[in-house]
Amino acid sequence: MRSIIIASTSTIHGGQPLDYLLDELENHFKTTDEVLFIPYARPGGISHDEYTTRVAEPFGKIGKSVKGIHSFDNPKKAIAEAKGIFTGGGNTFVLVNQLYKNDILSSIKEAVNNGTPYLGTSAGSNICGLTMNTTNDMPIVYPPSFKTLGLVPFNINPHYLDPDPKSTHMGETRETRIKEFHAYNTQPVIGLREGSWIEVKGDSMVLKGNLDSRIFEFGKDPYEISANSDLEFLK
Amino acid sequence: MRSIIIASTSTIHGGQPLDYLLDELENHFKTTDEVLFIPYARPGGISHDEYTTRVAEPFGKIGKSVKGIHSFDNPKKAIAEAKGIFTGGGNTFVLVNQLYKNDILSSIKEAVNNGTPYLGTSAGSNICGLTMNTTNDMPIVYPPSFKTLGLVPFNINPHYLDPDPKSTHMGETRETRIKEFHAYNTQPVIGLREGSWIEVKGDSMVLKGNLDSRIFEFGKDPYEISANSDLEFLK
Repeated sequence: MRSIIIASTSTIHGGQPLDYLLDELENHFKTTDEVLFIPYARPGGISHDEYTTRVAEPFGKIGKSVKGIHSFDNPKKAIAEAKGIFTGGGNTFVLVNQLYKNDILSSIKEAVNNGTPYLGTSAGSNICGLTMNTTNDMPIVYPPSFKTLGLVPFNINPHYLDPDPKSTHMGETRETRIKEFHAYNTQPVIGLREGSWIEVKGDSMVLKGNLDSRIFEFGKDPYEISANSDLEFLK
Repeated sequence: MRSIIIASTSTIHGGQPLDYLLDELENHFKTTDEVLFIPYARPGGISHDEYTTRVAEPFGKIGKSVKGIHSFDNPKKAIAEAKGIFTGGGNTFVLVNQLYKNDILSSIKEAVNNGTPYLGTSAGSNICGLTMNTTNDMPIVYPPSFKTLGLVPFNINPHYLDPDPKSTHMGETRETRIKEFHAYNTQPVIGLREGSWIEVKGDSMVLKGNLDSRIFEFGKDPYEISANSDLEFLK
């Protein structure tokens, strides 16, 4: 049975990486002591090794070790044999580019659909949607495609941010950007605020955490859904 | 002689579109009564017609008419024959995609290098840099390349935004994003705050407006330069 956690962020304000999710993760990865980490998104441009070391710390707190996919000779085989997969945040363009380079998008999709528990945060959540067209990241590299895993039948906008009524900045709000997305695309988008995640179990998809999420459907005004909502209606 | 204005934004907080630039523009476009407008960036997904109508208003105040490039049968010819060109803001991915579709990047570059006065705001400024890799926009469509006009020998980050020390949001700051850019690219980036513009006259490039700009060079700490600085050193 598919078992996926799609989290808006790894870290909430004032917290340590993953600490708000650790209870969930202990259960999510209960069938394994080792998690395969995909560090390709390289936040701040750090190395794969450095990112893997950083991620090992919170996982250590729940008794799991972490191994970076870059330390395997054959990444496809590493994914096929993994008992748990975590893709961390950073830059979605860099992540997707590297996934295409190593030709492992289909490997991840197959493993997850066959039941390997998957965790994504930020960029690692973006790739769970149909495409990466609703990332917030800067296009610092040019990936061969914006198509991603499609583990859920909609797009993700992580770190969803409400317009700041006091702002004097004239750049587009997140809501405007997603509206522009719908001038060219029709799939729904879920704006996941920091602290929210989507829990996928088999065919069920539920919004978790304490916060509402904002839903953008093509041709409709955006609206809020509350925590614990079933996301079945977005199919 | 090349004559280019590369503006961070069309509109500053509390102002009307282009009003802070109108005196400059009257002089910039003094040799023509008609400006060719490139509305491809479609802010908020509005139509080319609607965007052109919107832009005609401020230009009317300085006695110029505006004609949208979409109303010409042959956009290459429209550019070659234009006496002034303005590319407006919106979504840079949408803009660049359409410029490639119509195969007119080289036409614009040629016209501008031959002296046709050019104005860009926001997305229309982004494309003056070497690449669009430092846009802030959401990648809502997939353009065939991120390479842009290269009218200046660096990249532009329009609507440059300083980190907000009070923010509780965990998404990347603009500075972090540009640092990530330099993990993969070496050209300098100028963070143009709203109200700043670059004035190019022949080979000279000067920062205009009242604000400092933030410079990001590969392998260096970012730093500020003041208004009226010569940008020659970024070559």
